Amino acid sequence: MSTPLELPASVSPFLSTYLPPASPSSSPDPLEPEETEPASRPFVTLTYATSLDSHLSIAPGVQTALSGPESKALTHHLRTFHDAILIGASTAVADDPGLNSRLPGTTLSQQPRPIILDPTFRWQLTRESRVLRTTRDGQGLAPWVFVAKEPEAGDVRVGVLEEVGGQLVVLEQEDGKEWGWEKILAKLAELGIKSVMVEGGARVANGLLKRGDLVDSVVVTVAPVYLGKGGVNVSPEGVVRFRDVAWCTLGRDVVMAGRVELVEGV
Amino acid sequence: MSTPLELPASVSPFLSTYLPPASPSSSPDPLEPEETEPASRPFVTLTYATSLDSHLSIAPGVQTALSGPESKALTHHLRTFHDAILIGASTAVADDPGLNSRLPGTTLSQQPRPIILDPTFRWQLTRESRVLRTTRDGQGLAPWVFVAKEPEAGDVRVGVLEEVGGQLVVLEQEDGKEWGWEKILAKLAELGIKSVMVEGGARVANGLLKRGDLVDSVVVTVAPVYLGKGGVNVSPEGVVRFRDVAWCTLGRDVVMAGRVELVEGV
Repeated sequence: MSTPLELPASVSPFLSTYLPPASPSSSPDPLEPEETEPASRPFVTLTYATSLDSHLSIAPGVQTALSGPESKALTHHLRTFHDAILIGASTAVADDPGLNSRLPGTTLSQQPRPIILDPTFRWQLTRESRVLRTTRDGQGLAPWVFVAKEPEAGDVRVGVLEEVGGQLVVLEQEDGKEWGWEKILAKLAELGIKSVMVEGGARVANGLLKRGDLVDSVVVTVAPVYLGKGGVNVSPEGVVRFRDVAWCTLGRDVVMAGRVELVEGV
Repeated sequence: MSTPLELPASVSPFLSTYLPPASPSSSPDPLEPEETEPASRPFVTLTYATSLDSHLSIAPGVQTALSGPESKALTHHLRTFHDAILIGASTAVADDPGLNSRLPGTTLSQQPRPIILDPTFRWQLTRESRVLRTTRDGQGLAPWVFVAKEPEAGDVRVGVLEEVGGQLVVLEQEDGKEWGWEKILAKLAELGIKSVMVEGGARVANGLLKRGDLVDSVVVTVAPVYLGKGGVNVSPEGVVRFRDVAWCTLGRDVVMAGRVELVEGV
């Protein structure tokens, strides 16, 4: 067992202005006007931890511990403010992540929905995949896996997923083209997701940085290490500038929070 | 004219434990024992400013403003504690740097000696090169250019350099091999340099990170921007870990100070 995460006192004030708006109360307020048009996309927080040389891991497919316990606690705290956590299939395969908040005291209703972008359905999930064990243990929600087409009949993974209440979401790619971020985010909004925390990997991060207009907050943890040439790198196409930048030192790491100001040269 | 640099109050306490030891007093102390053996190398501080994606510039040969005025003031403050500043020829060519401290109140005796590593002597210095203008203006010391062999007779650049009191230092490469860092640092020690601030560019930084055993302090400024694919990248061969890590927020930037703990996989 690892030591329980403990949230440093500096985290809440540091993050306060970067969080998604609080969900409207479920009991309708008679003084409020009629419900407004549903948003076309959720509030998007892009977040990940890198080395000083902007690597997520030391090599493709190799999980690499970067964040210390304090900045990890920040990430788990941030998760409780979002309806969903989204990752790419490579990260699901490499890290076998839990995709829940493991901060002590987190209730099931505060847990985000795990969403895995996996157009070709290459994630070999089993009953022992960590996110499914987490769901069975009542510590997290069942995952939704976004695929580009219906899986073959008899794919046991569908049963494994549905057994815990998860599901495949078929989101078609038009003309064999990759999903665009608008399409993914529109689908999330349609599914009732009002806020999503996008956690990587590199392809997801680079793609979404390039579409800074679709991102509300960016929260990057930087760990004091160089992973060296050959690492999996966050470096988008073009220049991405930030506004409302704040930094917070947490243990050995530093965390930057900001909003995308400008994307140039894409 | 740019605004004069102003040193934030947080810089001195932040840097205090990462500075070179103070030079011994020039008046001999009768209570002190005889002078100790001269050090085989100077105290080495490796320092540079990168983007979040660890780029020094947006493309090779393109000077890119990264640091804000507060972290720039830190760099100029740090320069006054060192006998020399060292850069590679690419940086001299790309940036035309002043290589002095421009903090108000810096005296000429506090200015570091500019050293340019230029084995093939490709830096096309002229009287208008900034470091030479700085020297003529009494704002900095004359540069020393390390070359691998004597320049051709009649090379006017030698005159330009000597005119302000600068010099070429011929440091031979054995068997056509590049200088190693031991050799460069031994030569600096021989020339009386007790502390050197190595400021880049990427080749110098990556080479010296790999030789963390030769580095005493590392001070890295990180600016809140991604420069994007194609930038000039600091990412050494192998993993480099740090100890005694401290972070300081300065304006929009953050600065890490630390010591190299371990270099793996080189």
